[in-house]
Amino acid sequence: MRKICVVISARASYARIKTMLENIEQNENLSLEIILIGSSILEKYGDISASVQAKFKNVFKIHTSFEPGSASAMAKSTGVSIIELSNYFSNSKPDIVITIADRYETISTSIASSYQNICLVHIQGGEITGNIDEKVRHANSKFADYHFVSNEIAKKRLRQLGEEPSSIFNVGCPSIDIANQLKKNRSLDFNPFEKYGGVGNIFDIKSNDYLVLLQHPVTNENLDSELQMSKSLEAIKKTDMYAFIFWPNIDSGTSGTSKAIRKFRENYFSNKIHYFKNFSPEDFLKLLMNSSCLIGNSSTGIRECSFLGIPVVNIGSRQNGRLRGSNVIDVNHDINEIYQAIIKCSETETNSQNLYGNGNAGFQISQILEKLTLKNDKRFIDIL
Amino acid sequence: MRKICVVISARASYARIKTMLENIEQNENLSLEIILIGSSILEKYGDISASVQAKFKNVFKIHTSFEPGSASAMAKSTGVSIIELSNYFSNSKPDIVITIADRYETISTSIASSYQNICLVHIQGGEITGNIDEKVRHANSKFADYHFVSNEIAKKRLRQLGEEPSSIFNVGCPSIDIANQLKKNRSLDFNPFEKYGGVGNIFDIKSNDYLVLLQHPVTNENLDSELQMSKSLEAIKKTDMYAFIFWPNIDSGTSGTSKAIRKFRENYFSNKIHYFKNFSPEDFLKLLMNSSCLIGNSSTGIRECSFLGIPVVNIGSRQNGRLRGSNVIDVNHDINEIYQAIIKCSETETNSQNLYGNGNAGFQISQILEKLTLKNDKRFIDIL
Amino acid sequence: MRKICVVISARASYARIKTMLENIEQNENLSLEIILIGSSILEKYGDISASVQAKFKNVFKIHTSFEPGSASAMAKSTGVSIIELSNYFSNSKPDIVITIADRYETISTSIASSYQNICLVHIQGGEITGNIDEKVRHANSKFADYHFVSNEIAKKRLRQLGEEPSSIFNVGCPSIDIANQLKKNRSLDFNPFEKYGGVGNIFDIKSNDYLVLLQHPVTNENLDSELQMSKSLEAIKKTDMYAFIFWPNIDSGTSGTSKAIRKFRENYFSNKIHYFKNFSPEDFLKLLMNSSCLIGNSSTGIRECSFLGIPVVNIGSRQNGRLRGSNVIDVNHDINEIYQAIIKCSETETNSQNLYGNGNAGFQISQILEKLTLKNDKRFIDIL
Amino acid sequence: MRKICVVISARASYARIKTMLENIEQNENLSLEIILIGSSILEKYGDISASVQAKFKNVFKIHTSFEPGSASAMAKSTGVSIIELSNYFSNSKPDIVITIADRYETISTSIASSYQNICLVHIQGGEITGNIDEKVRHANSKFADYHFVSNEIAKKRLRQLGEEPSSIFNVGCPSIDIANQLKKNRSLDFNPFEKYGGVGNIFDIKSNDYLVLLQHPVTNENLDSELQMSKSLEAIKKTDMYAFIFWPNIDSGTSGTSKAIRKFRENYFSNKIHYFKNFSPEDFLKLLMNSSCLIGNSSTGIRECSFLGIPVVNIGSRQNGRLRGSNVIDVNHDINEIYQAIIKCSETETNSQNLYGNGNAGFQISQILEKLTLKNDKRFIDIL
Repeated sequence: MRKICVVISARASYARIKTMLENIEQNENLSLEIILIGSSILEKYGDISASVQAKFKNVFKIHTSFEPGSASAMAKSTGVSIIELSNYFSNSKPDIVITIADRYETISTSIASSYQNICLVHIQGGEITGNIDEKVRHANSKFADYHFVSNEIAKKRLRQLGEEPSSIFNVGCPSIDIANQLKKNRSLDFNPFEKYGGVGNIFDIKSNDYLVLLQHPVTNENLDSELQMSKSLEAIKKTDMYAFIFWPNIDSGTSGTSKAIRKFRENYFSNKIHYFKNFSPEDFLKLLMNSSCLIGNSSTGIRECSFLGIPVVNIGSRQNGRLRGSNVIDVNHDINEIYQAIIKCSETETNSQNLYGNGNAGFQISQILEKLTLKNDKRFIDIL
Repeated sequence: MRKICVVISARASYARIKTMLENIEQNENLSLEIILIGSSILEKYGDISASVQAKFKNVFKIHTSFEPGSASAMAKSTGVSIIELSNYFSNSKPDIVITIADRYETISTSIASSYQNICLVHIQGGEITGNIDEKVRHANSKFADYHFVSNEIAKKRLRQLGEEPSSIFNVGCPSIDIANQLKKNRSLDFNPFEKYGGVGNIFDIKSNDYLVLLQHPVTNENLDSELQMSKSLEAIKKTDMYAFIFWPNIDSGTSGTSKAIRKFRENYFSNKIHYFKNFSPEDFLKLLMNSSCLIGNSSTGIRECSFLGIPVVNIGSRQNGRLRGSNVIDVNHDINEIYQAIIKCSETETNSQNLYGNGNAGFQISQILEKLTLKNDKRFIDIL
Repeated sequence: MRKICVVISARASYARIKTMLENIEQNENLSLEIILIGSSILEKYGDISASVQAKFKNVFKIHTSFEPGSASAMAKSTGVSIIELSNYFSNSKPDIVITIADRYETISTSIASSYQNICLVHIQGGEITGNIDEKVRHANSKFADYHFVSNEIAKKRLRQLGEEPSSIFNVGCPSIDIANQLKKNRSLDFNPFEKYGGVGNIFDIKSNDYLVLLQHPVTNENLDSELQMSKSLEAIKKTDMYAFIFWPNIDSGTSGTSKAIRKFRENYFSNKIHYFKNFSPEDFLKLLMNSSCLIGNSSTGIRECSFLGIPVVNIGSRQNGRLRGSNVIDVNHDINEIYQAIIKCSETETNSQNLYGNGNAGFQISQILEKLTLKNDKRFIDIL
Repeated sequence: MRKICVVISARASYARIKTMLENIEQNENLSLEIILIGSSILEKYGDISASVQAKFKNVFKIHTSFEPGSASAMAKSTGVSIIELSNYFSNSKPDIVITIADRYETISTSIASSYQNICLVHIQGGEITGNIDEKVRHANSKFADYHFVSNEIAKKRLRQLGEEPSSIFNVGCPSIDIANQLKKNRSLDFNPFEKYGGVGNIFDIKSNDYLVLLQHPVTNENLDSELQMSKSLEAIKKTDMYAFIFWPNIDSGTSGTSKAIRKFRENYFSNKIHYFKNFSPEDFLKLLMNSSCLIGNSSTGIRECSFLGIPVVNIGSRQNGRLRGSNVIDVNHDINEIYQAIIKCSETETNSQNLYGNGNAGFQISQILEKLTLKNDKRFIDIL
């Protein structure tokens, strides 16, 4: 049995690869170990440990997050992750380690495994965005021995990066798998207020009648995060529509983003707004499918929402360069631009597009993991 | 004044960029800070702190090296480096941070600076080798905002990696600067035994009459390091020539390489062999210029030795893929292959070649650093 | 000149030793270095770096705090502090390092210095309390080479701990120095709302007409912290008096304590309550001197308040065992007990008592530091 | 079942508590977890992991050792130990954690457990020595909730330290258990050269005809370690007796001690000397029982050797203050003093003494661990 170790560093990453985990767990030739690090186990950012432990057998937790209120917190958290992950790998001796996408902590998985000559697999390489993610993603690819990518464009980019074509597998994005399962039944079959609590007024939820805001800080614009968030909140206020507002992730600048929300909540009492920390991946997509649109800069707006045909107002530079569908309206951090885009979203229909795969990525990955030739060495392939 | 911070993690890296440091220190528009980490400040691997502190004003030391006798040591040392470097940068606030080449610890410099939005410069990207270095080097390039490379081939590779052409400067390798200064006077103007002590018999040194062996472990072949080193030692024994043998660097596998040397020394008493820890960059090149050949897998054999026309027996995979001159004979870890190559070296002449620049890289770099537009954000450039 | 390095890990510790720092800085035979770690540089807990840097020349910051929402955060923060402090000491080479009192991070100062054979001085040993502080304080004493204590009882306890009598100096507590300076003019000469902002309603402040609540989690009762805090808040509610409520420190359980405050604020809208993060040491004492009483479990209630004759309702186990004056009423975490004690406080007068010195500790310490024989070795002194 | 977690940081500590581990493992009401840290898993200092894993089920390894060639290595290793141990405890949730004696890393076990409110047991408190151990030992006691001590004097000292009498158990030292088992058959029933290899000449071993030297650096005299060791080696040379010389532990100063051995070996070729890294606890005692005497500063000379009646030349300050029998001759780092003491040892007989228990400590400890009331809180007990 091949031992596969997957490191998850945030609730969003878990959502993205849940079907892959299920398929590995069910595969008789593979054994699965999950390590939870970073904000994925912090109550404040939506602790996923209980739900992961309920579904999967081997789950180990490592607290790696420094208090995010300092410029050095992201780097220091990454340093601690490397120290502890390398020790875990050294005892557990996995055959394959999987690092996910592009969050800043994901590089620690790459270093801890490749420095110990363990075969490293990277999911979701070859894409382009803003944020420190853009640097981290490609660095992960250069450490990885194998790549599971979401589309042909990403595959082409990995070849450009000097990767061996036979090491790159275009299986689509596993985040689409969940979207695909939900596609048939789009109804909001749970009560958000009852199930997730949150803070703020409770109101009647009608389909296509409410907004969802999920906006993270941009690490290399971290000093502007409070201002940027306040623009989005002001735009929502201007619409006077019902809205669900979610707290940001732990990236550098998060205190600014949170401060904007707290100030907004204290200064503007509205009985049309409710604040949430965290939904399960499935419930979040159900909420989006019934919303007027998603506002912010989450990659869910680009990936799952294109597949599900959900309108998105994408703000700022965070998703710059990522392949997107006609469901996305790109705007700057400008109250009026955001407001206009929201209005436009509520008036137009959007169609589903298959930019990130067909919805069976998790199964494909588990099949390929069975047969991969284990290796930890590669050379840059010249193509120029 | 622009504050430039350079992190050095090994004696070999110092040799490689010494002229760059001198040119930055002398430049009126730049102020220089040097941080010494890793094996560069360990007595066992040739502590350079005294000589660096004698030449440069602002030198700070961070002990980051775990005892190298474990598989996780390289990763853990990197983790600690990130933690402490990020704190140093956070207090010192440099305008530009420079990370050098491809040793495993160099990624910590990249992460600590780029995660804090500091402009990052990478030296010696775009080359190809074996070892974990191959992965680390390209990952460094993907974190870096600017690149100083050694030749046009390296420049082309960085463009392939998706880097903006205007961010890549082909200035040659600063290691050639020192070689260039020494070229005029090739005489061995010091007594190695007196100046550096070492262990073993003292003998008469005649030009072209002795061998120099410098062989490091290969991180992804670390379990073979003792065997690999013993082959090289046996080949030297077979020649019955005078030889200077240097201890290896701190890479994973170093205990095996050292063990081979210790066993060899204990089991084979020869009055023709002397063991050294560490020479100054200049003295090491002088020793090489007067040797019959350099044996092992150091990049000095590929870079400086091609410029100086010194014959090299390059063993194994460590330098695989690096641009090399006609001075290099590549062989496997095989006693007879190594022996034959040594004999061939002593019989043929080699010419100087300019594969890694003309010898003014340090000056060019300092000039460019003055004027670089500070930035910490970039996007992958598609060329396919 | 003797180099003295003082490590400060929390705003409360700074308040406690400010006069000592001033006296060292002014002493011609001493040079001062201050290192700020832990919550002392986190905005959320009252970042003191700007005010420290404004007063003192050599200030270095080290971010060591893990996100406090996990059981392992205190230990991990301590581990990182040791790593980085030992490196700082190794570069700076102080003659004497000073560790303050008993917060959990203070042991890192003791370890980092004593493991490098640097003479260690401990302030405020020999006292008894609850919390992890009780263990940390005495462990600090066993690492320290010299001790500055607050009274004769503390001195006696250090002898019992096996310390050499000549290494123990009873100078009083430097926190009393500030109290002493303020004693003459007890007026509230600033507007708290204007100077410190905070959250909540703004009201007219009349002397002896308002309460101040400062309650920290108890580390070994950390799972009860929310409940414990809610009792105190309910008691305040019951009084219907004006109140200033301060956020807790970063100790384990802090999320529970904060949660209680947030819930209270959301569920009970009162125009008589205002919430603050952090005052300067002087302003906090001025606020207390004009209050009806201090409620909670801060050591300020035991130390400075006894000297200033301020009534205190001390709740729970955190200060158990600490020498206290007649100004303190001890109660359990019981709404009614707390309420009754508050009422009693507003009806009785309290007198000043000199349990923790006369107010010139800072000066005495700086004088003694000049002349201490530097040492790093000691033996337990048997007295039984 | 009560989960007991024991952290071992050096081969010598393992020897000391082996019978305790066996008794816990065999106890039906207890489950045992062993964590190996520090030099206990470094080949250079005698990696015990294979033999521990062969005997015990749950063994986890954490590489924590920094390269010992720097002043900050001990502190940094301790910092990393705290970080990783606290994470291990946080996942494994032991009921009781046991920290052993006084090596510098042992404080990390105390901090990682007590900061997470886990009941902490300390073995071998209440003794007096030199070295940083003296400070660490008493600090461990102040963190611990329960104490297993070796004799009545140690028990009295813990009461003086302010510990609750009912929390202190005088069970004797478990190191004596092994000595007791070996007492009946004192013969050297194995061939040291065959079983342990080592370096140097092979010779005929006759009882009482050879010396054993085991000398560690003294941390607070670390700069003198090379000189101190060379004195001992010179004294051995002067006797011209057969000798087994063991490499030192990893304490600060170890490079100096090792250097002295290497220089001695290179400059003085003797066919009467053999160098070893590490014996099993049992074999080491057998070697000692048949030797003329043990020379150096190991606590084995004080503990086990008093019980077994083995003559000891104890050099320098490391064991200062520790209760010793008539088998010990204390000398300074002086060639002649050491030489004279060796001669005296070979001429006098020594008797067995029961200063450290009767040889059933391991069993007693396991019995008590079953029934201890779990707690994590205590107060200093005044006795003055």
